[in-house]
Amino acid sequence: MSVIEELTTELARLPGIGRKTALRLTYHLLKRKPEDIRRLSRALENVVERVRACSSCGNLTEQDPCALCVSPRRDPTAICVVEEASDIMAIERTGEYSGMYHVLGGRLSPLEGVGPEELNVASLLRRVSVRTTEEGGVVTEVIVATNPSVEGEATALYLQRVMQPLGVRVTRLARGLPVGGDLEYADGVTIAQAFAGRREL
Amino acid sequence: MSVIEELTTELARLPGIGRKTALRLTYHLLKRKPEDIRRLSRALENVVERVRACSSCGNLTEQDPCALCVSPRRDPTAICVVEEASDIMAIERTGEYSGMYHVLGGRLSPLEGVGPEELNVASLLRRVSVRTTEEGGVVTEVIVATNPSVEGEATALYLQRVMQPLGVRVTRLARGLPVGGDLEYADGVTIAQAFAGRREL
Repeated sequence: MSVIEELTTELARLPGIGRKTALRLTYHLLKRKPEDIRRLSRALENVVERVRACSSCGNLTEQDPCALCVSPRRDPTAICVVEEASDIMAIERTGEYSGMYHVLGGRLSPLEGVGPEELNVASLLRRVSVRTTEEGGVVTEVIVATNPSVEGEATALYLQRVMQPLGVRVTRLARGLPVGGDLEYADGVTIAQAFAGRREL
Repeated sequence: MSVIEELTTELARLPGIGRKTALRLTYHLLKRKPEDIRRLSRALENVVERVRACSSCGNLTEQDPCALCVSPRRDPTAICVVEEASDIMAIERTGEYSGMYHVLGGRLSPLEGVGPEELNVASLLRRVSVRTTEEGGVVTEVIVATNPSVEGEATALYLQRVMQPLGVRVTRLARGLPVGGDLEYADGVTIAQAFAGRREL
């Protein structure tokens, strides 16, 4: 296999990139300056060498514990549980949340053989169980921000059940109509959730 | 800038990949085995180090002259002129052509300041001018396969003009309705070309 084919094959492994797009990308890269291609190659190397999962929250980071875990400006009484590290970035972009995070590393999925042992559940329970000297729990609220999918819901229900004995408030992100969305095009389940979660004006 | 942002920025430089897709690709890569990421990084390095333009035809290759130029099974009397090396692959996939190639490295574009000197025109004329001992030209036909765009047409006309004195047959790929296409959805210019190029059944 030629190195051109090799690169095309590797690029075609990326999600959403088929054989044809990979070939187009390869030829595009070949038209650029060698330094440009090297920069991408080095960025990949750097990521392999330096990015680790934070030993506390599971966020992807270059320092351990991660910047969010050591920040004195974050509220240590709240933990937001997400499926993937990429979800943290989506939430951080809003600037609406200033607590801590915990990355599960997926969601419960009996069909794919993903049980609680495959996820970072034990470490979450350990973090929630930490007591201060006055015997009050440090963490008072766990916000479950798993995806609003069937598996995300099941994971949320499971977490609620295992955390109940710890005396912590377990909440879930609201479901409803997305802002800027159109009622006419919303699916029935979302509309039903929007009705169930309606609030006084 | 963190190495994650660095990789995202580099991926976002690729054509058709925006900031959001680049971020998704980055997180996808981070979930893969380090060896997988390293393979992509190495494939990029290899391409920089080993791929060169063929000194004869301009095709991208690891050996110089390229495999097409040295193959004894290719017909040396025909040269197919293309804009980019990627066009060669598209033509080779059809298996319909067994002559030689010549990569212009673009098309004439006065607006972008691309004149004949910026393209591999001189090397094409040199190849076409090679005479055998019996004073017959080696190359008897030049098939101009530049894109069927305004600039591709202008480039074809220019090549036809400069090659006329060399006594070589200059042909152009046929324009017409694409196979599997729908007359109803074809643009007017294509239909006009299809009429002009109509053939006896």
